[in-house]
Amino acid sequence: MFVVMAGTASEAEVLGVKSAILAEGLTPYDHAGPDRTVIAVVGDMGARKPALLERLAALPGVKAVTPIGTPFKLASREFQPEPTIIRVLDAVIGDGGLTVMAGPCSVESRDQLFETAEGVAAAGATILRGGAFKPRTSPYSFQGLGVEALRYLAEARERTGLPVVTEVMEPSQVDIVAEYADILQIGTRNMQNYSLLTAVGRVARPVLLKRGYGATIEEWLMAAEYIVSSGNPNVILCERGIRTFETYTRNTMDLTAVPVLHGLTHLPVIVDPSHATGKRRLVQPMALAGIGAGADGVMVEVHPRPDEALSDSEQQLDLPMFRSMMAVLVPIHAQLRRLREAGAGAARTAAEGRPATAATGDSTFGDRPPAGAAVPR
Amino acid sequence: MFVVMAGTASEAEVLGVKSAILAEGLTPYDHAGPDRTVIAVVGDMGARKPALLERLAALPGVKAVTPIGTPFKLASREFQPEPTIIRVLDAVIGDGGLTVMAGPCSVESRDQLFETAEGVAAAGATILRGGAFKPRTSPYSFQGLGVEALRYLAEARERTGLPVVTEVMEPSQVDIVAEYADILQIGTRNMQNYSLLTAVGRVARPVLLKRGYGATIEEWLMAAEYIVSSGNPNVILCERGIRTFETYTRNTMDLTAVPVLHGLTHLPVIVDPSHATGKRRLVQPMALAGIGAGADGVMVEVHPRPDEALSDSEQQLDLPMFRSMMAVLVPIHAQLRRLREAGAGAARTAAEGRPATAATGDSTFGDRPPAGAAVPR
Amino acid sequence: MFVVMAGTASEAEVLGVKSAILAEGLTPYDHAGPDRTVIAVVGDMGARKPALLERLAALPGVKAVTPIGTPFKLASREFQPEPTIIRVLDAVIGDGGLTVMAGPCSVESRDQLFETAEGVAAAGATILRGGAFKPRTSPYSFQGLGVEALRYLAEARERTGLPVVTEVMEPSQVDIVAEYADILQIGTRNMQNYSLLTAVGRVARPVLLKRGYGATIEEWLMAAEYIVSSGNPNVILCERGIRTFETYTRNTMDLTAVPVLHGLTHLPVIVDPSHATGKRRLVQPMALAGIGAGADGVMVEVHPRPDEALSDSEQQLDLPMFRSMMAVLVPIHAQLRRLREAGAGAARTAAEGRPATAATGDSTFGDRPPAGAAVPR
Amino acid sequence: MFVVMAGTASEAEVLGVKSAILAEGLTPYDHAGPDRTVIAVVGDMGARKPALLERLAALPGVKAVTPIGTPFKLASREFQPEPTIIRVLDAVIGDGGLTVMAGPCSVESRDQLFETAEGVAAAGATILRGGAFKPRTSPYSFQGLGVEALRYLAEARERTGLPVVTEVMEPSQVDIVAEYADILQIGTRNMQNYSLLTAVGRVARPVLLKRGYGATIEEWLMAAEYIVSSGNPNVILCERGIRTFETYTRNTMDLTAVPVLHGLTHLPVIVDPSHATGKRRLVQPMALAGIGAGADGVMVEVHPRPDEALSDSEQQLDLPMFRSMMAVLVPIHAQLRRLREAGAGAARTAAEGRPATAATGDSTFGDRPPAGAAVPR
Repeated sequence: MFVVMAGTASEAEVLGVKSAILAEGLTPYDHAGPDRTVIAVVGDMGARKPALLERLAALPGVKAVTPIGTPFKLASREFQPEPTIIRVLDAVIGDGGLTVMAGPCSVESRDQLFETAEGVAAAGATILRGGAFKPRTSPYSFQGLGVEALRYLAEARERTGLPVVTEVMEPSQVDIVAEYADILQIGTRNMQNYSLLTAVGRVARPVLLKRGYGATIEEWLMAAEYIVSSGNPNVILCERGIRTFETYTRNTMDLTAVPVLHGLTHLPVIVDPSHATGKRRLVQPMALAGIGAGADGVMVEVHPRPDEALSDSEQQLDLPMFRSMMAVLVPIHAQLRRLREAGAGAARTAAEGRPATAATGDSTFGDRPPAGAAVPR
Repeated sequence: MFVVMAGTASEAEVLGVKSAILAEGLTPYDHAGPDRTVIAVVGDMGARKPALLERLAALPGVKAVTPIGTPFKLASREFQPEPTIIRVLDAVIGDGGLTVMAGPCSVESRDQLFETAEGVAAAGATILRGGAFKPRTSPYSFQGLGVEALRYLAEARERTGLPVVTEVMEPSQVDIVAEYADILQIGTRNMQNYSLLTAVGRVARPVLLKRGYGATIEEWLMAAEYIVSSGNPNVILCERGIRTFETYTRNTMDLTAVPVLHGLTHLPVIVDPSHATGKRRLVQPMALAGIGAGADGVMVEVHPRPDEALSDSEQQLDLPMFRSMMAVLVPIHAQLRRLREAGAGAARTAAEGRPATAATGDSTFGDRPPAGAAVPR
Repeated sequence: MFVVMAGTASEAEVLGVKSAILAEGLTPYDHAGPDRTVIAVVGDMGARKPALLERLAALPGVKAVTPIGTPFKLASREFQPEPTIIRVLDAVIGDGGLTVMAGPCSVESRDQLFETAEGVAAAGATILRGGAFKPRTSPYSFQGLGVEALRYLAEARERTGLPVVTEVMEPSQVDIVAEYADILQIGTRNMQNYSLLTAVGRVARPVLLKRGYGATIEEWLMAAEYIVSSGNPNVILCERGIRTFETYTRNTMDLTAVPVLHGLTHLPVIVDPSHATGKRRLVQPMALAGIGAGADGVMVEVHPRPDEALSDSEQQLDLPMFRSMMAVLVPIHAQLRRLREAGAGAARTAAEGRPATAATGDSTFGDRPPAGAAVPR
Repeated sequence: MFVVMAGTASEAEVLGVKSAILAEGLTPYDHAGPDRTVIAVVGDMGARKPALLERLAALPGVKAVTPIGTPFKLASREFQPEPTIIRVLDAVIGDGGLTVMAGPCSVESRDQLFETAEGVAAAGATILRGGAFKPRTSPYSFQGLGVEALRYLAEARERTGLPVVTEVMEPSQVDIVAEYADILQIGTRNMQNYSLLTAVGRVARPVLLKRGYGATIEEWLMAAEYIVSSGNPNVILCERGIRTFETYTRNTMDLTAVPVLHGLTHLPVIVDPSHATGKRRLVQPMALAGIGAGADGVMVEVHPRPDEALSDSEQQLDLPMFRSMMAVLVPIHAQLRRLREAGAGAARTAAEGRPATAATGDSTFGDRPPAGAAVPR
């Protein structure tokens, strides 16, 4: 259940509620929003639930106690109405700006990485991606350069100023990856690797959580809940395609997940058209489609010479294609943001009795608190 | 196989090739583009194929004879490189402009239809939709007003000037629907009703062909091929969502189909976010996403009072929501068109050795012949 | 709603209830089972429902009036608890015996059909299948011999004594196909062709209704409901695979649908491993699996020389393979039937508080009324 | 590539080939079958492949060198034609007998486990299952008793003599689970957790590898390849349902995977109708269907009082239902085995020019070497 504190509640009153929850052997998680503080109560309440609800509602400073309508709690908009904004070095994710994560599928050499990193930085990318540990379907495929690649990524950050995102594949790798990288990526095959989710939930690095290719939106949010409830509130969701009967594309990009998520959760959402489509010629239109759907950003694979790539060669853009994409993506995102901030909030739907935009996930473009959850290096 | 005529070939030479094909008991279909004429050869060639290919290649005026790489022939870009542009009354579909089909799921009464028609026309819709014959999962559900609804739709056309699209469900209905409507719609459940496809292939009305919710892109194009090879070149493809394991939305909107189709076929492609999502609050972001993906237009369900609708009440927009959507959709489409026409064509990809945009389906925004296949009433 | 008459209710009392329903502008459908008669009330009741329920419950001979828990009514087990048994010539479907429909994908010639028909009859097939009108993905593929094939099928029936099942593709074909064939097949692509469903609902021939490859079990039963509510109670359901991400097989055979259906409906269920798998070497194990799941029979494609077949050559068995399959299928079915009739009915589950077998669809193997719905030629 | 040694090749000749492969920086894996030895060559060969192939073919004792047609190598039937037979305590898996793994979803208490273990042992189960570490979609759900449960399982093994299978969720748990359990289970969510696959590949315990609910058959075999190529040849594959649009059942049980796998791999295959269907009344028919499809065994969840279960309460059988299932399963499996061993091998298909049964996966029921890969405790 959620305990909603009155706007005027004192810190002592918030503490009083948390103590009462702890005294019951339950765990309180609190979120202090601009207008009010909400405390989520987590744990097995069993039959005492109605009595407990009544008791908490009677405590000083409590405005209301409500049951939780979704299986995810801390990730829900009910718990935190305002969007989560994540700051890493100079990059800001989820504040209405355009996040562009770009870089090679795999880090193959220092030169390949630096050439790509400088190219995408010059074209406007805000975050550098690159695989060090690669989850491969075959045990005989290239498995990544490992720690060597992590060092190159850290060097590339020095040269470009771009924060670095890279995948972590098992709990025992979390520390070493967190030492070099700025954002830890959980890949699609590990979305339900609960040991790993708990492990990344315990470090001070934002996590990019890719959707499992066979996972529902709800399961995806439950995976995010594992991370957040372990102590790490900075989760970025990344739609990368689901598996369907269609064989023309590598996956089916479920862009509707973007506005659905913006309605259900406060976490930022980006889209990965490279993995979703598997074909480089489809990346630009699907990146644009993602921005149209309201995504907070895109992640694309870029390689100086895609045909020589050691992995995913068919879906990586070369640098001219990346620049060409940015030349369309940036102004379209800017205009969309202007339009949403300007007038779209005005329309009300008679059918729903509330602003059309609130429900369409446009609230991510609305008023925000001045500061996000800064994650310093 | 395709016989590509030299740009300088005379009409007599084209005729000569067609005669040679007919003499073999095969069927020639020709397309005269701005630069060249292509003749598709259809029929069972069996073992004589190589000999025939050689013979045709030697005829005067023939530039090349090529095998066909796809199972669809007349619908392919290889047969007709330039986009099909369809004109109905004042509406033009596929010329780079924004097509907006809007109206109620079902025509429920004269008043309901007129109120909606005038509302969507005022807000910028270019075509009026409305169901007269309704395919319903249950035999006990409202099955539509039938011919009465067709009459109302024709009246609404008189009042608003908007051409009318409505569904036809069986071969014996084709004549009566074609009498009243301007565009015949084939619904998702009938995408592989081959008798019906052949029947609509024989009338002088454009056809809106919805994707079967369980159909691949290739099967969808084969369904279009049934219509085109029966004599009707004016087919509009409409993505309306496919069925996946995701249950949050009614279907999963496969927007990647848009650039894929723009690469494979010359037919225009629109998207239907109402059926794809099943929830009105998702319609606006997914319409925008569709435009981002390069769609030639959108189809949305609009009802003056959605909560009173006899069918699909959860997914119909009311008029304020429709206006709100148009206020964002129109400028974004316009800017995207400008950007594409301006510079995007310049980028070349080293990896593919050809213009990035040709492959991304942007060719639909390139140079076009001045006139489309006008379909007068 | 269902009006359940007392076991002692007189014919006059049943008539009284039906009159009362008709007087309300609603339609009564009655089913006289061995123990009791049930009358389904169909039509739009709106707000008068509670009052009507009360009024009907008070009529003489009425034992109970219950709301209907499923969207399908006449096809439900609640309406008719005992299984529908269909008799066509000497074949009986749904009585606990093993139905085997076999024959070529397409009727290609008189000789090919007769050779196959005699071969499968000698090996124990109970019904002859063969395509006359073929729904093909491509307009350029072999579309079947049409009426000529229907004549061959009728001749083959004369020679072998086997009733004949063949597909009908559109409402205008129903009469001619019904003239020659004993069972009308609705193909997977037409499962939601409601005009066709209604048309076959009006003829005195059993209907084999294949599951749409993208359809849910509930939609499939709604399609059956269209046929039954149009007047034809003799529907056989045929599972033929659904579409999934798995590409190794043509479709994914959803055998769990068999016991699910046996729980939900009284209609017989057969399985088609030829279309479900698309590979002949998988037909025998999947036919056995179907029998293990409780299916009333199987439908398999057999061709004397599969490699020369004009359609589906990879999935047709040759005659030795068919005989080999029958040599395993027949004794396994017989033993399974013995086991089920003997002891399995004895086990009760504490968890469900009712016989385990009733729910597992084994009721189709229980006591049955002596006579089914005979359909004489 | 595979190097096939002549039947008469000496041990020294086999060693010679392996040395030649190692000298190239590649890895040889050899399998000594009853008739011949096959050596798989693994590693990046690049351009030297044709020359290498020629050189190896010329070595003494080599009969043939063939490229590998599948991405999985050591798991393929080409590498090892005869089936893998796994022995654990008194249980034998893959020898044509019926393996039955049964027990509770989660170990909840010593009493609950012992009651179940004794009940399923008495009814004929050959292996005891029970969850100690539970992968749960929600971080707030019961996560299993952990090591305490492992101790109970070991005790239950003492009392019943049944070997124990239980899930391991992360690399760091492998040692402790291997200390108590006889077979290590990899759950559906971890099928592509490559770190975990490699870790269980290094211990001397057979591994039960569940199919990922969104994974293709090929990916599943690649996951098995990770385990086998890490040194553990004893992998049992378990089909437990894939995710589709059908919502009536928890998953769609892909039973066709059974004969497909028997054609592609030598590893034993069992089926799990509890997770595949999610409903206890569907377990018995689908277990029978699995046996019909040729599975080497079944895995079912059994709980003394399913309604009180802490997880998966709807799909667990109670003990009477389990006994009832066994009463049908055992005799049907026995008869099927007799029929297959007796006559079915005789039929040849003209179409394929080889024994029908070889291709249907029935080869798992053919002649086998007397001893499997025994895994002593």
